[in-house]
Amino acid sequence: MPEIPAARAKDLEHIFYPKSVAVLGTNRVVGTVPYDIFANILRDNFQGIVYPVSPKERSVAGVRAYKYVLDIPDPVDLAILVFPSTVCNLALEQCGQKGVKAAIIISAGFREIGGAGIQREEEIKAIAKKHNISFIGPNCLGVINTDPLSHLNASFARKMPAEGNIAFLSQSGALCTAVLDYAQAKHIGFSKFVSFGNKANINELDLMRYLKNDPKTKVILVYLEEITDGAGLMNVAHEIITETGKPILVLKSGRTREGAAAAASHTGSLAGSDEVCDAALKQAGVIRCTTVEEMFNTAIALAYQPLPRGNRVAIITNAGGPGVLATDAAVAQKLSLATFSPETLEVYKKSLPATANIKNPVDVIGDARADRYKVALGSALKDVNVDGVLVILTPQSMTDIENIAREVCNTIGQFDKPAYASFMGEKDVAAGISILQQRSIPHYVLPESMCRAFAGALFFKNYREMKPEDLQVFSSVQKEKAGSVLQGALNAGRKYLPEEESVKILEAYGLPTLLSGLAKSGADAAAIGERIGFPVVMKVVSDDIVHKFDVKGVVLDIRSRTQAEEAYDSIISDIGKVMPDAKIKGIYVQRMVTKGEEVILGVKRDPSFGAVIMFGLGGLFVEVFRDVSFRVAPVGPRSASEMIREIKAYDMLAGARGKKPRDIRSVEECIQRLSKLALDFPEIKELDINPLIVNDEGGGCYVADARIML
Amino acid sequence: MPEIPAARAKDLEHIFYPKSVAVLGTNRVVGTVPYDIFANILRDNFQGIVYPVSPKERSVAGVRAYKYVLDIPDPVDLAILVFPSTVCNLALEQCGQKGVKAAIIISAGFREIGGAGIQREEEIKAIAKKHNISFIGPNCLGVINTDPLSHLNASFARKMPAEGNIAFLSQSGALCTAVLDYAQAKHIGFSKFVSFGNKANINELDLMRYLKNDPKTKVILVYLEEITDGAGLMNVAHEIITETGKPILVLKSGRTREGAAAAASHTGSLAGSDEVCDAALKQAGVIRCTTVEEMFNTAIALAYQPLPRGNRVAIITNAGGPGVLATDAAVAQKLSLATFSPETLEVYKKSLPATANIKNPVDVIGDARADRYKVALGSALKDVNVDGVLVILTPQSMTDIENIAREVCNTIGQFDKPAYASFMGEKDVAAGISILQQRSIPHYVLPESMCRAFAGALFFKNYREMKPEDLQVFSSVQKEKAGSVLQGALNAGRKYLPEEESVKILEAYGLPTLLSGLAKSGADAAAIGERIGFPVVMKVVSDDIVHKFDVKGVVLDIRSRTQAEEAYDSIISDIGKVMPDAKIKGIYVQRMVTKGEEVILGVKRDPSFGAVIMFGLGGLFVEVFRDVSFRVAPVGPRSASEMIREIKAYDMLAGARGKKPRDIRSVEECIQRLSKLALDFPEIKELDINPLIVNDEGGGCYVADARIML
Repeated sequence: MPEIPAARAKDLEHIFYPKSVAVLGTNRVVGTVPYDIFANILRDNFQGIVYPVSPKERSVAGVRAYKYVLDIPDPVDLAILVFPSTVCNLALEQCGQKGVKAAIIISAGFREIGGAGIQREEEIKAIAKKHNISFIGPNCLGVINTDPLSHLNASFARKMPAEGNIAFLSQSGALCTAVLDYAQAKHIGFSKFVSFGNKANINELDLMRYLKNDPKTKVILVYLEEITDGAGLMNVAHEIITETGKPILVLKSGRTREGAAAAASHTGSLAGSDEVCDAALKQAGVIRCTTVEEMFNTAIALAYQPLPRGNRVAIITNAGGPGVLATDAAVAQKLSLATFSPETLEVYKKSLPATANIKNPVDVIGDARADRYKVALGSALKDVNVDGVLVILTPQSMTDIENIAREVCNTIGQFDKPAYASFMGEKDVAAGISILQQRSIPHYVLPESMCRAFAGALFFKNYREMKPEDLQVFSSVQKEKAGSVLQGALNAGRKYLPEEESVKILEAYGLPTLLSGLAKSGADAAAIGERIGFPVVMKVVSDDIVHKFDVKGVVLDIRSRTQAEEAYDSIISDIGKVMPDAKIKGIYVQRMVTKGEEVILGVKRDPSFGAVIMFGLGGLFVEVFRDVSFRVAPVGPRSASEMIREIKAYDMLAGARGKKPRDIRSVEECIQRLSKLALDFPEIKELDINPLIVNDEGGGCYVADARIML
Repeated sequence: MPEIPAARAKDLEHIFYPKSVAVLGTNRVVGTVPYDIFANILRDNFQGIVYPVSPKERSVAGVRAYKYVLDIPDPVDLAILVFPSTVCNLALEQCGQKGVKAAIIISAGFREIGGAGIQREEEIKAIAKKHNISFIGPNCLGVINTDPLSHLNASFARKMPAEGNIAFLSQSGALCTAVLDYAQAKHIGFSKFVSFGNKANINELDLMRYLKNDPKTKVILVYLEEITDGAGLMNVAHEIITETGKPILVLKSGRTREGAAAAASHTGSLAGSDEVCDAALKQAGVIRCTTVEEMFNTAIALAYQPLPRGNRVAIITNAGGPGVLATDAAVAQKLSLATFSPETLEVYKKSLPATANIKNPVDVIGDARADRYKVALGSALKDVNVDGVLVILTPQSMTDIENIAREVCNTIGQFDKPAYASFMGEKDVAAGISILQQRSIPHYVLPESMCRAFAGALFFKNYREMKPEDLQVFSSVQKEKAGSVLQGALNAGRKYLPEEESVKILEAYGLPTLLSGLAKSGADAAAIGERIGFPVVMKVVSDDIVHKFDVKGVVLDIRSRTQAEEAYDSIISDIGKVMPDAKIKGIYVQRMVTKGEEVILGVKRDPSFGAVIMFGLGGLFVEVFRDVSFRVAPVGPRSASEMIREIKAYDMLAGARGKKPRDIRSVEECIQRLSKLALDFPEIKELDINPLIVNDEGGGCYVADARIML
């Protein structure tokens, strides 16, 4: 995927590594944002020069101030604007005149307040464009770069975080303050920390692309309240993951309808379907998290430890109860409990007390001290049947917590396998936890969180190892034919394509349709029926009728010429009674399929992610259980296969209850052809094939009804 | 429900409020269990007298020791045994001779190690019975009573918890140590704290019954790895909740198959179905939790704050992002966002800055100080449209965290409505959180946990307000008739009742069955068909054939005498080909129902909870989605109605997709009749009605197939 040139043009180097910074609008009032920002840069050991710019003050925090940015006698790489929003346009204009190339606009009062704020945001965008200034914000907390080369705390956060290899990008500034506080307490360091606010210029995609090449960043975390360019996000994520192996974790709020409404009133964003967002992020290899805590829990596993090779975990505990809880949690995350090799069991038999449980979960018993943890953990890590180890400790009277913590760190350090720890409790275990955290052993308050983090790391490992998927090329596609049917409807100003037109389009894309014909009379219907073979279905065709069943516009299971003629008359007369004004184009006569499983295929347009393909089992399964799968187009052969297999009702197709397996391969092909159609014709807003009837293996499938909305 | 006399006889008063305690098997080695237990009682300010008993020592911790308990010159209320398991029998025997009435057996090495341990446990049980000694344990951490009247720390826990109104009972001793540590850090106090270990004598039910009348206890928490007497647990829980209004929270581990196996190897317990356990606890009003943290999160909400009156919450936050996350979390817990009254909105408009979002979630903006929180919180609590308030704070540069914490406490204290808080972050907010915790305002690290706790409190409130359910009396039940059919099968040594016998039993209990007859010849079949009316279904009857469909033993939709005769012959001949030795009793001819929704009813016997009634929609819904509901019998009219309504596919019965609603009342009656049948005949191990065909409203329902296993 080619990089977008516009993004490359954005100047992020001057945001993170400026040689000189001017803070425009600072003041002398300690505890206010304008002062704090300047003081933070100055005191947190910035490696360049920082200039205060204040029309009213002669100096700020002991540093000589300038009235205007233009007064600064030296070049300025980065301007930070903390003026009230109403004067930001003037300040930014002066930055342009000064030749400043990058800015961070902290000030609020723009798009997020609506009305005049939107106007103001457009103004600063225009000024920035004119002077070719790249900027972060407005309405943000600022930017932090912990790299000792720069060591820039251009934010009004209360504290500069420690250096680390996790980058954090956030659409919410306030969340940043909570995150910094949380991370400090847990000894979690950051490489870059960015609150990007309204993202009027530099957005999360630009930042992610920058972090891709940032040698200080190993894991990328993003908090989003809206996804404006879903396809862009997927591309960037996929590119980062496959080219650099850096995991990306996204916390996207507004999952529920009410949450999305709250987010909209907060950021003015437009919500797509959360289910589609879930599927799309997964498709791009992104780990989606539901809470801040879950995001960091998974991030430290990825940042600190090697990826697991598989899902077989060993649990080591000094207490039976927590071992049981951890087992439940592991299984709930689809991990399996490793079966130890005979060598490991031999070591355990020899080294652990007779009362110890040496099967997984290994209970080293309440009086275990560091030596017992060492042998249990070391042997498990050495065991070829073990992909990772979960170490649990409860503070019992004999437990030498700190020694155990040190021994756990030492032992894990000797192997290239992931091991995480959960020291349960709080005060008594605090010193032990601190040792683990300082030595970068992922620690979790709950065994449940530990298992979820392991599962997240495993998802990422599996995604990275997947070979790229080549799209299948279908030679038989007749794009022009489909296009002319669509054009005809568009020319006639129609938004809805009835079955017989929809079927023509699908046919042009090689989807298997049923023999059919349009009858204009009873005799016509009988003749068509005889030609295509009974039994047939007959359905009314009218632009005025969308729900054919409701007006008795459909007759099933017609088995003879006579029945076909009768059906023709009865449909015409029944509709005449309820919809006398409906303009009837004719009656569609279609071969009837009597056997097979009904599935549904669909195309949707998501405001963030674009063309989305949907698959589900027919009727009730979709309606009652929302048992459907989604993929953003294009969908290749592997994704098509996964889509079918990930619905809960998959067993129904695979041959449950003694039934024969259905022709899944033919459905996979339909999904891929539909994906091509959806990408070729963006004017298709919605498409439903309901049902697609799937025969037994080798028997193919058939489009039994379809409709397209433009 | 009558109290069980045996339980009342157990002497728990001497466990919690002994005037004198002897520690048998103590020593002088600091840091060992035998020493720590004695020292804990002595140093943690026990209000009675404690005697060390040690065959080898003259004194322990400065207190004169006795060789044997019999040497103590004064009466002893409670004996604590810390001897090795091998001598506990002798020690307990001497306690009996001394007239000790209660004991806590800390020592491990009993049932949990199998073999000789099981034998040892039987011995101490026999000795206790002989001397009428009630005891806790063996294999436990001990007992703590924080009541100043006793102030007993008879445990080897590292610390005595603070006094509080939460009681904690645990099957796992090690979990207790983690819980005590966790609770201390969060300023959570306890009334009673019991590790009951192998519960060879006093079990969780005895303890719960005691706590019911304990004025110091407001909320009861129980950690279980096995539920031995599920029915007893339900009775006790229901009794406590309805009579005293004390909520009960249960953390039951072993949810998954693997977890249950780990628990079994740890405690030797037998696992029932986790789904049944879930349903049964809910039925008894118990709040089931999945993690220790969730249990305490809900417990503090119940212990500290009034119950919510409804599900309408107000969210007050100083940051938009967390407000969105909290909204998502609230909706996920089925809470609704309150719509403020005009008065509240008026106050907000007047008192909050223009940029504040005054709709729910209320964003008081990042620079909010205590005054703004006060007005936002106070007005929300006053609003009649608000049932509870969730207060969120992020530590921004202007945030006066501790003042806000104090103001939040003061404001909440003025109203009789629940309000919880989430101060996000860790170090910066620590002092603020501590203020909240010390003043008993429930605090949560995550908005998600906060909403879950609110939902838990709401569940409890709704349960408490439910009127007791009277069982419906069915006069038409013919118990003897059903009994004689069952007896016939039992006498013949059969474990399986075929359809025609199962139907007789169901008929005797008033379940609606279809007209039918047993045909011994083709002519017979034709005559029966004519008598009951076509169409009919014909099914083979043979003790040798369980799966009739698989051997072509069923023919559907027989519409005439001729077809009936043909069907008879074809069944006989088809079975003759595949199962020539099957003994055929005849062919069952049954009226066929062609319309209606198929549902499934069933009876199961759970090893913990006894007779369980199951309901689900037919076929695939049960098999693929496990979309079923359970209730422990007896099932009354309200529970029957709930069972039907709580499955996901309920809409299918209620009239979705333009269909008419089905006759749900008739199914409710069937469920209740089945419940009576299950209780009347414990010899029924399993019963399936599959399907029960439900007609449109008013049309009733019919048992279309059934089988009973004995």
